[in-house]
Amino acid sequence: MLQSRQFARVLDQWPKDEEAINARYLIRAGFLSKTAAGVYTLLPLGQRVLHKINAIIREEMNGVGAEELSMPALIPKRIWEQSGRWEVPVVYKLTGADGEEYGLGWTHEEVIAEIGEKYLVAEKFLPRAVYQIQTKFRKEARAKSGILRGREFLMKDLYSFHATEADMRAYYEVVAEAYKRVFARVGLQALVCEASGGDFTKDYTHEFQVVAESGEDLIYVCEAGCGFCQNKEIAKVGAGEQCPQCSKGKIEEKKAIEVGNIFRLGKRFSEKFFMASYGIGPTRVLGTIVEVSHDEQGIVWPEAVAPFQAHLLVLGKEEKTRERAKDLYEKLIVQGHEVLFDDREEPAGVKFVDADMIGCPYRIVISDRVPEGEVEIKKRGRAKSEVVGEEEMIKRVFG
Amino acid sequence: MLQSRQFARVLDQWPKDEEAINARYLIRAGFLSKTAAGVYTLLPLGQRVLHKINAIIREEMNGVGAEELSMPALIPKRIWEQSGRWEVPVVYKLTGADGEEYGLGWTHEEVIAEIGEKYLVAEKFLPRAVYQIQTKFRKEARAKSGILRGREFLMKDLYSFHATEADMRAYYEVVAEAYKRVFARVGLQALVCEASGGDFTKDYTHEFQVVAESGEDLIYVCEAGCGFCQNKEIAKVGAGEQCPQCSKGKIEEKKAIEVGNIFRLGKRFSEKFFMASYGIGPTRVLGTIVEVSHDEQGIVWPEAVAPFQAHLLVLGKEEKTRERAKDLYEKLIVQGHEVLFDDREEPAGVKFVDADMIGCPYRIVISDRVPEGEVEIKKRGRAKSEVVGEEEMIKRVFG
Repeated sequence: MLQSRQFARVLDQWPKDEEAINARYLIRAGFLSKTAAGVYTLLPLGQRVLHKINAIIREEMNGVGAEELSMPALIPKRIWEQSGRWEVPVVYKLTGADGEEYGLGWTHEEVIAEIGEKYLVAEKFLPRAVYQIQTKFRKEARAKSGILRGREFLMKDLYSFHATEADMRAYYEVVAEAYKRVFARVGLQALVCEASGGDFTKDYTHEFQVVAESGEDLIYVCEAGCGFCQNKEIAKVGAGEQCPQCSKGKIEEKKAIEVGNIFRLGKRFSEKFFMASYGIGPTRVLGTIVEVSHDEQGIVWPEAVAPFQAHLLVLGKEEKTRERAKDLYEKLIVQGHEVLFDDREEPAGVKFVDADMIGCPYRIVISDRVPEGEVEIKKRGRAKSEVVGEEEMIKRVFG
Repeated sequence: MLQSRQFARVLDQWPKDEEAINARYLIRAGFLSKTAAGVYTLLPLGQRVLHKINAIIREEMNGVGAEELSMPALIPKRIWEQSGRWEVPVVYKLTGADGEEYGLGWTHEEVIAEIGEKYLVAEKFLPRAVYQIQTKFRKEARAKSGILRGREFLMKDLYSFHATEADMRAYYEVVAEAYKRVFARVGLQALVCEASGGDFTKDYTHEFQVVAESGEDLIYVCEAGCGFCQNKEIAKVGAGEQCPQCSKGKIEEKKAIEVGNIFRLGKRFSEKFFMASYGIGPTRVLGTIVEVSHDEQGIVWPEAVAPFQAHLLVLGKEEKTRERAKDLYEKLIVQGHEVLFDDREEPAGVKFVDADMIGCPYRIVISDRVPEGEVEIKKRGRAKSEVVGEEEMIKRVFG
């Protein structure tokens, strides 16, 4: 992509009306634009990151045998009433032309259970699993966390259907492992945390929590790393006490962002099968990555989800330098590599600042001073750059 | 995909509450499920088709230099009021927790114009083009056309921004050509039809119309094929009269489905640039394909958008036959081909009926009677099947 042709760009200033780190960085770097409180537009750079997160999620969901579908956001009152969730405060309600009432979907257990009852009418049709990546709506009173808690946000929700409770429990573990792979692949260290089942189930549910200063959840974690992790809401142990699991480490209280959750629903939504549901918020994942992976200069994208693997900068006034950079860009594109090419007529200082703010994993510089056939490369987040041959660069950056 | 593991399946009966061909076939064949009038769930087979339509659209939009982004469905009243479209009857309105009012997006000119004004502040930032594939909402009074006119539907909307009217007009033609390629690639014969600009522009706009008995639009077309095509609403010529363009053919009136439209908006939404907008409804495209490509036995998918290129059926009782079919299925999957494998314990009659209903381009049969190393192949829509060697089949079906 030619930077001179991009729709959006890095802004000179931090946004004045955002407190959350994710929104501040994403807006400044040209990934996000605010349309209203808690309501955002994902600009092209943000959309590229989102596509990569979604592709990883799809691979892992398909890998556990789930099929993708898409359910509507307009959910008729009738369906919510059957489950007793029409009066849940987060439901946006609206009325259609012929008087019918809808609640905008903030979750889809009811809708998929109704469809499941149509198709999964005998044991031979179980187990099954389906998922969607779809826009959800929540009537949030506060909207201060950027895309971590939007009034409109993307959700990957998976639903599984089983003939027996044991089968549901076994598949729940399979999905939990897939979730761990998703978070590891997008570059997040997510802890598996026991939490309350709320009105869903008396069982524990499991949350996937990423430790971050800006997290809204409080979790209790064993400092010895034995794996003990509980949401403070259910913990029977206190901060500073001995870990009840390993009896070695002490319990630490940490702030964390919930990036996923999984529920054993049992027969809560249908008498006909045991159900479990599993959620990941791709836009929240995007925001969380920014919360935990940035520095004063800008975002530091993990390679797997970076908008581009490399940012190629051309500096200097010589026509020959510009030609060299253009040739290299075209060569990399032909080879199928993802490169953002800063071909703008801007001073070196501006280009360096913008590159750090956007945060691609590698910066490649061609300038009047870099000898022909060579380039300067720098990994984002490291201080030192290096001058290497073009082929060596291709091996290191794209190899 | 193993048919025995699918979430949904072909139903025994036509749905009783649907008049539209697209909804009747898509529901019966297991591509679609009705959640409320005008509100549908796309089941996994339907989602597969949608992914293919969207991939073609993305290729063509990226090909004309447009960048993908995604705008919200929750659009604050403030934005609609600026353009004078808050009172448009199709807007679903709702109220948030802190009293703010939103209209659900049925189009996004206002939202993107506001963002454009933030970034496109000088001539050097023009021209630009962005698009999204995003869910739209329309408060439709009637909902009788299946997914041709849903209350919730997917839309690809592209917006372009220009420094001069001439540049806008030139790019409009470039996008019109890309639209022709999209429709040709998904297997639709779309006519480019002049139409009224409504409240947008005094210029003609252009609709892409697919002739179909179930179409809600009436268009006037030159029978000699000179390319003359106008929406009846603006035509100054009558049915049966001489074509005003070529003076050779006669004008025929036809029913048609509008699958795309393009508008030269000029400065209607911002004083700062000339804008044009361009829409394709991917779910409507999906429904239109079914309207024009089916027979009494079921859907006949064009190859480019079929859920699977081939449907492999195993018939007969011999264990050896089942082994042969399983081996062939695994071989085709390893080669990267898209195959639906009917491995169910069902009579041959049921498998044939279901295969025709689902409508994959090729049916491949392995039975006790087909000699080893050979298979029976039949193209969907043709009467005759043929027994050929496996390698020959791979060449013909996937070559």
